[in-house]
Amino acid sequence: MNNHKVRFLPEGKQVDAAEGMILKDVINEVGINFDFPCGGRGTCGKCRIRVVSGSDTLQEQETSLLTPDEQTDGIRLACLVEVNGNLTVELLAEKNVEHQILLSSLGRKARVKPHLIKRYIEVEKPTMADNRPDWQRVKDSLTKQDGQPVEVHYPALRTLPVELRKQDYTITAVLEQNRVRGVEAGNTSDSLLGIAFDIGTTTIVGYLTDLYTGRELSVVSALNPQTRYGADVIARITHTLQHDQGLDQLQRAVLGALDDLIGDAVAKAGVDRNDVYAISVVGNTCMHHLFLGISPRQLALSPYVPAISEPVVVDVTDLQLNVNKAGKVFVLPNIAGFVGADMVAVLLAAELDRSEDVKLIIDIGTNGEIALGSQEQLFACSAAAGPAFEGAQISCGMRGATGAIDHVTFGEQLETTVIGGGRALGVCGSALLDTVAGLLEAGLISEKGKFNDPDAVTNSAGLKYKERIIRHEGAWAFLLSDEPGGKKIMITQKDVRELQLAKGAIASGIQVLMNESGLEPADIKEVLLAGAFGNYLNPHSACVLGLIPPELEDRVTMIGNAAGAGAKLALVSVDEYQRAAALAGKVKFVELGANRNFNHIFASSMLFPSQT
Amino acid sequence: MNNHKVRFLPEGKQVDAAEGMILKDVINEVGINFDFPCGGRGTCGKCRIRVVSGSDTLQEQETSLLTPDEQTDGIRLACLVEVNGNLTVELLAEKNVEHQILLSSLGRKARVKPHLIKRYIEVEKPTMADNRPDWQRVKDSLTKQDGQPVEVHYPALRTLPVELRKQDYTITAVLEQNRVRGVEAGNTSDSLLGIAFDIGTTTIVGYLTDLYTGRELSVVSALNPQTRYGADVIARITHTLQHDQGLDQLQRAVLGALDDLIGDAVAKAGVDRNDVYAISVVGNTCMHHLFLGISPRQLALSPYVPAISEPVVVDVTDLQLNVNKAGKVFVLPNIAGFVGADMVAVLLAAELDRSEDVKLIIDIGTNGEIALGSQEQLFACSAAAGPAFEGAQISCGMRGATGAIDHVTFGEQLETTVIGGGRALGVCGSALLDTVAGLLEAGLISEKGKFNDPDAVTNSAGLKYKERIIRHEGAWAFLLSDEPGGKKIMITQKDVRELQLAKGAIASGIQVLMNESGLEPADIKEVLLAGAFGNYLNPHSACVLGLIPPELEDRVTMIGNAAGAGAKLALVSVDEYQRAAALAGKVKFVELGANRNFNHIFASSMLFPSQT
Repeated sequence: MNNHKVRFLPEGKQVDAAEGMILKDVINEVGINFDFPCGGRGTCGKCRIRVVSGSDTLQEQETSLLTPDEQTDGIRLACLVEVNGNLTVELLAEKNVEHQILLSSLGRKARVKPHLIKRYIEVEKPTMADNRPDWQRVKDSLTKQDGQPVEVHYPALRTLPVELRKQDYTITAVLEQNRVRGVEAGNTSDSLLGIAFDIGTTTIVGYLTDLYTGRELSVVSALNPQTRYGADVIARITHTLQHDQGLDQLQRAVLGALDDLIGDAVAKAGVDRNDVYAISVVGNTCMHHLFLGISPRQLALSPYVPAISEPVVVDVTDLQLNVNKAGKVFVLPNIAGFVGADMVAVLLAAELDRSEDVKLIIDIGTNGEIALGSQEQLFACSAAAGPAFEGAQISCGMRGATGAIDHVTFGEQLETTVIGGGRALGVCGSALLDTVAGLLEAGLISEKGKFNDPDAVTNSAGLKYKERIIRHEGAWAFLLSDEPGGKKIMITQKDVRELQLAKGAIASGIQVLMNESGLEPADIKEVLLAGAFGNYLNPHSACVLGLIPPELEDRVTMIGNAAGAGAKLALVSVDEYQRAAALAGKVKFVELGANRNFNHIFASSMLFPSQT
Repeated sequence: MNNHKVRFLPEGKQVDAAEGMILKDVINEVGINFDFPCGGRGTCGKCRIRVVSGSDTLQEQETSLLTPDEQTDGIRLACLVEVNGNLTVELLAEKNVEHQILLSSLGRKARVKPHLIKRYIEVEKPTMADNRPDWQRVKDSLTKQDGQPVEVHYPALRTLPVELRKQDYTITAVLEQNRVRGVEAGNTSDSLLGIAFDIGTTTIVGYLTDLYTGRELSVVSALNPQTRYGADVIARITHTLQHDQGLDQLQRAVLGALDDLIGDAVAKAGVDRNDVYAISVVGNTCMHHLFLGISPRQLALSPYVPAISEPVVVDVTDLQLNVNKAGKVFVLPNIAGFVGADMVAVLLAAELDRSEDVKLIIDIGTNGEIALGSQEQLFACSAAAGPAFEGAQISCGMRGATGAIDHVTFGEQLETTVIGGGRALGVCGSALLDTVAGLLEAGLISEKGKFNDPDAVTNSAGLKYKERIIRHEGAWAFLLSDEPGGKKIMITQKDVRELQLAKGAIASGIQVLMNESGLEPADIKEVLLAGAFGNYLNPHSACVLGLIPPELEDRVTMIGNAAGAGAKLALVSVDEYQRAAALAGKVKFVELGANRNFNHIFASSMLFPSQT
């Protein structure tokens, strides 16, 4: 049997097809998302294509469903065209490449609809009788294809005359809506990539993505090099205030890191950075401002006003990001000074704006960002947890890195796990939670967070561990590890106080949101823990301590890096990006410091729940 | 009598007003263009202003014409407010500052309506209870004033938090339509300047203009530094083809010249270059392309296709022009490869698109650009006149500079005038025309352009000058000047041939346009001569030679640098800029080379009209 080549415009995809095959079946076999409303019975006339080269005879149904003009113009119905030679067809109904895709986190589906699209066009050559300007030719071709008038971005215009003539008047236009942002000689429409960035205060993660399919091509990460100017947000803001070039330095640092990560990501995936046309960015409000080179000074001063909450769209050339020059950066919107684009991305990934159920989302870091609500109403706040959960200001505390005790179980005997499996060097936040929860359940500390005198312990659980209660600097402490030749690792009374401050901040944030929204724990159908720490902690410990309302323990789900997932959604879909803006505008930000009862709520939130 | 200060927002203009004066009279005395539809009788309620500080009691008519909300908001009617203290008022009806102004050339009036406007706003300060982002505050203030939503340009956003706090939350927003392009601390609304550039192949002229009043503040000019890379358009295009950096060099040269001219213009006017927010640019299509850094290669190759004909708008930062960073460049549209934005500007200044009478416009340079028509239909072409009119390829030819014989009169005796009044060094184009016309009228040369044998001359006019007919290199020549110690200055047979080629090109262009439009000389009500040469030549000579149809001699008007006038119109008025685009789109470009009869028409156009 004879095989023929069938080529699909505007994408340029080419496949083999057997003699006599119906074009509809070729389209379906290739997996192109093309609509056949009547199921391909030749009755609705919707599956229009244009035969650019090669053809067969017009079927009877076509003569009645297509106007004479359409017939002369090569318009056919895909369900009636037989392949009996090489064929080039233009898919007319497929205005935007949109597929159903599955994004990893939260099992969330989204329709791919990239911010920038490509259109391959074969432009009519100029003659003495037809001396339309270059741009007019391109415009006319594009308008013919899409029906809506287009305009040109200046840098694209600059290169147009040269690109147009490199490959005999065939070019690929890169469009954002009706604006041509770039022109490339020949057919480059097979490649359209983007990268989503989650800029954390400490870590930056990038997700290189195919913008046609939504497929993730590679994931890269690096330390945020701004840490050299300050470990946390406040230190970096201070840096911008104390150094004339401080803001520039911080912006250049993060942009440099992004540029390096783009290099890593394309190398890993074996693609070209020049094929990257879109970048989405999420981060907390300070990271957002520093990325854009906007002074973050106001974020550190009451009333903590950000420069902007709306989405910001910037040319890649404005930020000197070394990707395709036609490219654009899509920064997600903020909610407030301390509830940033990263939280918006989390809410987007979790679809809180379309949830019938009330959900509580907590992203714990130095600042705990908390959101509560459903499609009816959405509240968010930022709770100043301080660095205790990250191991700072804890006597034996450390980050969740190699050597950190990360989990503690009060079983028959005390069991600890160490990251990396080697000797314990300290405790990280999750182990701190586990330990204090265990001590509370064993009756070794009180609801007020005070170590009980070990000699007064009488309950069986307590008796098992009372030997580990030791004196340290004039107060009680709990010994976690004392390996021979190793370091004594303990949780001191002071550490418990630090934990109480941190958990009190989060718990009171949750309480204020419940007060504001008129919701109670019973109304909350699900608790979503986002971010690295949220993914690490033991929900049982968190509930024992009242970090999360104890009655919600069996409704806790870890959703991982939901901010990254949200950034990817906003990258591959214009609709999701716009939805993020609508979502951010819908969230009622609650300023905890402005709440008259906050001090009272905070004081009572520092207590641990009764264990009886 | 007491004098009070009255200050008008958003412009910030301040004047003295006597106690008891009605605000309407103050407004009229100052010359602010503000509408009082009912003549100030307090009946229409249209002359709304907002009293920002200072006030008097509400009049009875106001209580019925203004809503309670408006009254609380300080809204008053200007025709009813009495000045009895210092007063700051905001003019609400005056959305855009629009005045009737008179532009020099062609006595043409236009309504000033700048591309960028300024709005002074006093922004509400953030509090814990009102922690809207900075941009939201500005947006809300502007929307309140103008009623339409605004968006922000990224560079303006970057500076917003700092600018907003420099002068206690008072700023001036620079807007282009609904887009905030810049923010400036405090009230800077009193200053809004622009500069219009006419970029000629040889000379660049700039007109610094007040965008509130349309008043010209200074005029500057300089040699186009691109001349160092080639004297004419073709030489410059060749330069871009022969040197990798050629296009960049040419663009940098013209941009550098513009930047220097802006410096000269603001120094001359005693203003600051940072107050320049708009730049309009006209030039031939090649100058247009080189200014924008677009390869002009196609302009030199048939079918002479420009990159674009539409208007191009560019940020000043894209061209590194050192004016206010919020500024924009408005390039006028082209018509075709050899009929550029300069001709569009001429047509705009001459209002050919709204003329009931048919007019013929000729701008003579190396290429003669010719337009013919009225509001009904408009035709244009470019005639390759060559450099003869600029003195090149003429034996004693020179530019119209000091030492050039510029006019020749065949009276009782031959009279010549020399530019600068000193000794004659050569002849420029206008004198060439005068001389050949005089020779033709005196019967010393034939209709075919051949010198008659002086010995065969019998008519009285001819006899007067036959002594000046001399032999030169084996042919006849006419001696114009032979001062002792000076140079012999003559017009040779070959010079006459060169002139015939040049005038034949223009005349045949006019003829083809008449053929295309179906118009005859009798239909043409006015001939407008634009450009430097058009302003210099003697229309009688031009008509004697048939450069212009002889029957139109009494309908010739010189309109000077109409391209510059058009550039100024497009600078001070958005409407005029848009009109230029519509106009350019309306002109039917006629490619002379594509006309089948062109060779025939050209050959007969080289002949001189019969003098009998």
